[in-house]
Amino acid sequence: VADLFAGTYGRGAAAAAVSGEAWLLAMLEVEAALARACEREGLVPAEAAVRIAAACDPAGFDPAALARDGGDHASVVVPLVRVLRERVGEPLAAYVHLGATSQDVVDTAAMLVARRALEPLLSDVAAMASAAAGLADRHRSTAVVGRTLLQQAIPTSFGLNAAGWMVALDAAALRLREVGERALAVQMGGPVGTRSPAVAALVAAELGLAEPLLPWHTDRTRVAELAGAVGTLAGVLTKIGRDVTLMSQDEVGELREGGASHRGGSSAMSHKRNPVEAVSVLACGRRVPGLVATILASMEQEYERAAGAWQAEWGTLRDLLALTGSAASWGRDLLEGLAVDASRMRENLARLASRGVSEAQAPERHLGSAEELIERALAAHHELTEESDD
Amino acid sequence: VADLFAGTYGRGAAAAAVSGEAWLLAMLEVEAALARACEREGLVPAEAAVRIAAACDPAGFDPAALARDGGDHASVVVPLVRVLRERVGEPLAAYVHLGATSQDVVDTAAMLVARRALEPLLSDVAAMASAAAGLADRHRSTAVVGRTLLQQAIPTSFGLNAAGWMVALDAAALRLREVGERALAVQMGGPVGTRSPAVAALVAAELGLAEPLLPWHTDRTRVAELAGAVGTLAGVLTKIGRDVTLMSQDEVGELREGGASHRGGSSAMSHKRNPVEAVSVLACGRRVPGLVATILASMEQEYERAAGAWQAEWGTLRDLLALTGSAASWGRDLLEGLAVDASRMRENLARLASRGVSEAQAPERHLGSAEELIERALAAHHELTEESDD
Amino acid sequence: VADLFAGTYGRGAAAAAVSGEAWLLAMLEVEAALARACEREGLVPAEAAVRIAAACDPAGFDPAALARDGGDHASVVVPLVRVLRERVGEPLAAYVHLGATSQDVVDTAAMLVARRALEPLLSDVAAMASAAAGLADRHRSTAVVGRTLLQQAIPTSFGLNAAGWMVALDAAALRLREVGERALAVQMGGPVGTRSPAVAALVAAELGLAEPLLPWHTDRTRVAELAGAVGTLAGVLTKIGRDVTLMSQDEVGELREGGASHRGGSSAMSHKRNPVEAVSVLACGRRVPGLVATILASMEQEYERAAGAWQAEWGTLRDLLALTGSAASWGRDLLEGLAVDASRMRENLARLASRGVSEAQAPERHLGSAEELIERALAAHHELTEESDD
Amino acid sequence: VADLFAGTYGRGAAAAAVSGEAWLLAMLEVEAALARACEREGLVPAEAAVRIAAACDPAGFDPAALARDGGDHASVVVPLVRVLRERVGEPLAAYVHLGATSQDVVDTAAMLVARRALEPLLSDVAAMASAAAGLADRHRSTAVVGRTLLQQAIPTSFGLNAAGWMVALDAAALRLREVGERALAVQMGGPVGTRSPAVAALVAAELGLAEPLLPWHTDRTRVAELAGAVGTLAGVLTKIGRDVTLMSQDEVGELREGGASHRGGSSAMSHKRNPVEAVSVLACGRRVPGLVATILASMEQEYERAAGAWQAEWGTLRDLLALTGSAASWGRDLLEGLAVDASRMRENLARLASRGVSEAQAPERHLGSAEELIERALAAHHELTEESDD
Repeated sequence: VADLFAGTYGRGAAAAAVSGEAWLLAMLEVEAALARACEREGLVPAEAAVRIAAACDPAGFDPAALARDGGDHASVVVPLVRVLRERVGEPLAAYVHLGATSQDVVDTAAMLVARRALEPLLSDVAAMASAAAGLADRHRSTAVVGRTLLQQAIPTSFGLNAAGWMVALDAAALRLREVGERALAVQMGGPVGTRSPAVAALVAAELGLAEPLLPWHTDRTRVAELAGAVGTLAGVLTKIGRDVTLMSQDEVGELREGGASHRGGSSAMSHKRNPVEAVSVLACGRRVPGLVATILASMEQEYERAAGAWQAEWGTLRDLLALTGSAASWGRDLLEGLAVDASRMRENLARLASRGVSEAQAPERHLGSAEELIERALAAHHELTEESDD
Repeated sequence: VADLFAGTYGRGAAAAAVSGEAWLLAMLEVEAALARACEREGLVPAEAAVRIAAACDPAGFDPAALARDGGDHASVVVPLVRVLRERVGEPLAAYVHLGATSQDVVDTAAMLVARRALEPLLSDVAAMASAAAGLADRHRSTAVVGRTLLQQAIPTSFGLNAAGWMVALDAAALRLREVGERALAVQMGGPVGTRSPAVAALVAAELGLAEPLLPWHTDRTRVAELAGAVGTLAGVLTKIGRDVTLMSQDEVGELREGGASHRGGSSAMSHKRNPVEAVSVLACGRRVPGLVATILASMEQEYERAAGAWQAEWGTLRDLLALTGSAASWGRDLLEGLAVDASRMRENLARLASRGVSEAQAPERHLGSAEELIERALAAHHELTEESDD
Repeated sequence: VADLFAGTYGRGAAAAAVSGEAWLLAMLEVEAALARACEREGLVPAEAAVRIAAACDPAGFDPAALARDGGDHASVVVPLVRVLRERVGEPLAAYVHLGATSQDVVDTAAMLVARRALEPLLSDVAAMASAAAGLADRHRSTAVVGRTLLQQAIPTSFGLNAAGWMVALDAAALRLREVGERALAVQMGGPVGTRSPAVAALVAAELGLAEPLLPWHTDRTRVAELAGAVGTLAGVLTKIGRDVTLMSQDEVGELREGGASHRGGSSAMSHKRNPVEAVSVLACGRRVPGLVATILASMEQEYERAAGAWQAEWGTLRDLLALTGSAASWGRDLLEGLAVDASRMRENLARLASRGVSEAQAPERHLGSAEELIERALAAHHELTEESDD
Repeated sequence: VADLFAGTYGRGAAAAAVSGEAWLLAMLEVEAALARACEREGLVPAEAAVRIAAACDPAGFDPAALARDGGDHASVVVPLVRVLRERVGEPLAAYVHLGATSQDVVDTAAMLVARRALEPLLSDVAAMASAAAGLADRHRSTAVVGRTLLQQAIPTSFGLNAAGWMVALDAAALRLREVGERALAVQMGGPVGTRSPAVAALVAAELGLAEPLLPWHTDRTRVAELAGAVGTLAGVLTKIGRDVTLMSQDEVGELREGGASHRGGSSAMSHKRNPVEAVSVLACGRRVPGLVATILASMEQEYERAAGAWQAEWGTLRDLLALTGSAASWGRDLLEGLAVDASRMRENLARLASRGVSEAQAPERHLGSAEELIERALAAHHELTEESDD
């Protein structure tokens, strides 16, 4: 069942990283890693671990069938394990999923999926920040009207606007990267979270996830932190999208999307060129706050496994990553192709000057401290960039 | 790209009614209806209307390709119209989509899709109300502990509990049916909403949609009303799901899901029987409030077409309908199969009686007015049911 | 403890109608009405009903003290009833609050408070619609650029913009008025909702509230419907606020707030005139969608009284009414004082014409159907207005 | 205008720290610090700085009057500065608020207010974690039924439940403390954010706030991070509140609130003892996710100062802090007084054993790894506690 709006909402590699196939692959990796960890702990014979790992080949699995059957158990792991046990065959089938509970597999897979979605997402955001840095650098002395409450105020430099985007992108990305490294942890606590942590530690090491202090079946701080950091980033993207739609108004005319020429045509008006990239950033980004609220409201989870709140998380987290990933993919095109019209900026300033606002008559006088600010923001950006390249 | 959680989130006919294929079909119906309306208004030659209607056969369309291309225009209508014009061929191609704008087609199709999703959704809710009415009728004198703040209070009858579900379902369904009849309107205003309403009236009549006073490109009261009514219904469903999970606790044991025996197995604990239907109602229903908030926040739409807020609606409305539809589908199984354990209800009342609460020692004395209330609730339900059967 | 932002968020009579004093008054009215109803049913001696009614004089109550003590019981009714019993004195004190539960009083009072808040709110909205109708009428042939995705499209008339506001306001207000009449019901079910409905019917009649089929302690469809209708209206207000901020941009200059001259000054820039009214509409209105989501998420209420979800409603509903009321109060000033600059509208159209868009060169040719649309929208508005005046 | 529900929603020092008086005080501190910083930079004569600092005495200010007048400017700073200038008198009045914009003062004050609210909030959370640690320690070998999807699963130890609460509290508090230290920054960019950073640095140093790279008038990552971290903590609190309400059910009976004996009485049923503390935690905590969504949706801020989105933040952030602070205050009472009934835990386990679940017949055998997990969680808690004591 295709999503007819996937061109807007599901653009880029982050969206692909949360597909049904990607989730299935992640779950199979978890089952295989679990078998190997159990083998090392002496709980599973070597032959079984090998057979299980071989059975965890996604080829031959039908995600749609698993999805359908998963509904009957409020867990896609039940049919998944059934297929794995059939593939492994007797007498080793019992070693599949040993000591684990459905939530162990879904939660650990969710963390793998999230990590894989964060990579392209953060890469797109880094490219956006880099593009914004370029704009800040090139336009440090390009005068533009500063606008407050949508009214012309006094002059600033367009480079400072762009530096503001850059600083916000860098800050949000840094937090998200930290959360990605710290909060994405293995879940391997068994039915009620009492499993000895040795197996969890081995699975964590194999999958490159953090090892939690305790199983976190109903402690959803990790998911909430992730959602908060993704939501903050999405908010930054909407700020940029909003500014570009405003500065692209015909009456303002200071910016223009430079995206591929086939974009932005109107079905009805040939003279129009719609700011499709900025609009798509906003279309995706505006869907995010409600999803974050759902994740936070879902933290109220009962006892050792929630009856509803956990199951509400699955699709919400997926959509959160896909939409923010798509927004960042649009945002990258937007900032990398953005065309700046410095002469329109001057014209608009002239309107302010004509109203007797002295600052607008000699905008350069106001740009000194703006340039100083840009300078230090760029320095911080380059330092951050070098660090993350190490 | 399959949704691995579709078994939980995408159950039932309402979810199917909002698929990419369903949206495509609806858009094609709109284009065909528009051509016929234009023909009747003398704007399109008869031959062109026939050719366009023939071109609007969904066979041969590739929703995935449309989705992809739609991204470049923030509108799936742009590639759709391109294909239609190719199919129609010169010299009649120009009559395709005559005088319309992308939003005309997407909004009208959204209303068709919503109407088709509401049918099975309301049918499942009607079945739930009917099942609840049966429970109310059979258990009007089945004493059960009334519980407030999760503490035992004084006796009530289980029939009154069930009547409470029934009344809430009926009320929410009635509102939603009214909104479905009144608010789902054609959109056919042309690029900036100035099109003469004659064509809109004809399209509305053909598609069975309401005719609006004005084009509503940026007046989203219709979408908001729909979202509010769907969200209210989803809330009712969660109340029922919550009660069933609570009354199914081993320590309470007053209700048990009677669903197909293959449901609710645990991947780790054979003695467990999970309340999968109630949990799935909650999993779907808890995702709804955040979506309603997104729809409401998206009402802030600029000028004659929004830059982002409208485009954020598409997937939100779809998910809202699919999730609530899925919750209702689960809820129907839940209430139709619900097993009541009146002896456990008596046992739990005995605990209250043992604490010296006199009302619990003779619960029948309290059930008189409960039965009176049930009686009048059932009478209202039957009146409503007969009306809607007419 | 004053709210330092009350000038923005708490403007107008609706906000005042949800104050602590207003809630207290409503609760006292409920207790007095209950006593009288019980008297008529022969449950309370006449002398007691008189004494109770006299005790329900708000003079001498300390809302702050009640609030403080109410915390200890998660119910402000507990200390309220204690004071009433002290005032009534023995031996009649036991007739206070007879057969009622805290939630009966809070819910019924909430409905009274809501009704009183809706009156000025709807009055402000009616004034807005009337002002919009005046604009639509005066500007039916005032050409303005239609803008889609914030880009100039083709001409429309400013009267049609204003008619769009009017139609949305009328539609949202009509629904809200209907909800106010139908959904605001008495709650008088006793501890677990089993109380005979006779008393509820009498209380409903006295207070002018609807009589529900059943007690609705955990059936929150009424609250959800109210929230949805209020939220929809708030969304309409934000659309108008957004349009005005955009059309008031210096670069667009087509609208200007005409509010009292002391408004909108900047603390730093004397040449600026901020669109304070539109900004305040947006400040209030943007807080609403999250509140509606909270109300909807709170519908999941356990058994006969919720442990948390109900108690989360109180402040949420209050804020919802206060903020939407404040937005409407700002919106009324906004529309009643709005100044239209038709010459700037023409200038902006000239820019479009200069790009070779033929429609812009003769905008009058496009206004014919716009005027037809305005005409029928105004006719519908006047019909509606006359009805509601009856 | 008293809030009649303040006993529930506004408990504890965090709620007090966001009162109108507290905001006023913070704003005055910002104006005084600005004057001193300007003096050090040679922009303001020493006499003026002294006079301004003296004028910034909150005595004599009327928060209600400021609030009212602030509405006319969508900024309470405008009337505040007017009063300050009157107090300072000519010719020095012009040095008040020098080079600053309203948002500089409101944002910096918001950060001060947040910091002051976080202190008692984090202190209450630390006390909760400490109480949970005590429970974990004392009950490491207290067997209890583990419950998944509200069904009895296999045994765990109550100490592990409590350790789970502790770990979640510690994690959420640690993040919030980090955000409090890193994200709470001075705002001092002047009208459009171009002010030289020297003054900002001095104000930051005086007020103990971080110094930002750039003015962040429309880069709201700081506010969003704060909201996300507060929201995550609120979610943890609701999880605990939910568990306690469930384990306090009469039919479960494993926990009981030990709060002051005057709490939890019912207005109608003398035998009831309501879990008021847990209910109040939930009442406050469930209002939070919608507020976080509002903050995130408000990140879409235009140009150099938003028209609506920023102004929507003020009350939202305040409510977020007050409600989470109140939830933590209730949560502290809850965990510090919690009574554990180990014999009911054994009884409930016996029910599971009677169904032939072998693990329940010898629960001790399952507690070994639970104790190991508790041990390491407690060790981490103590390490964290010692660090934060340093």
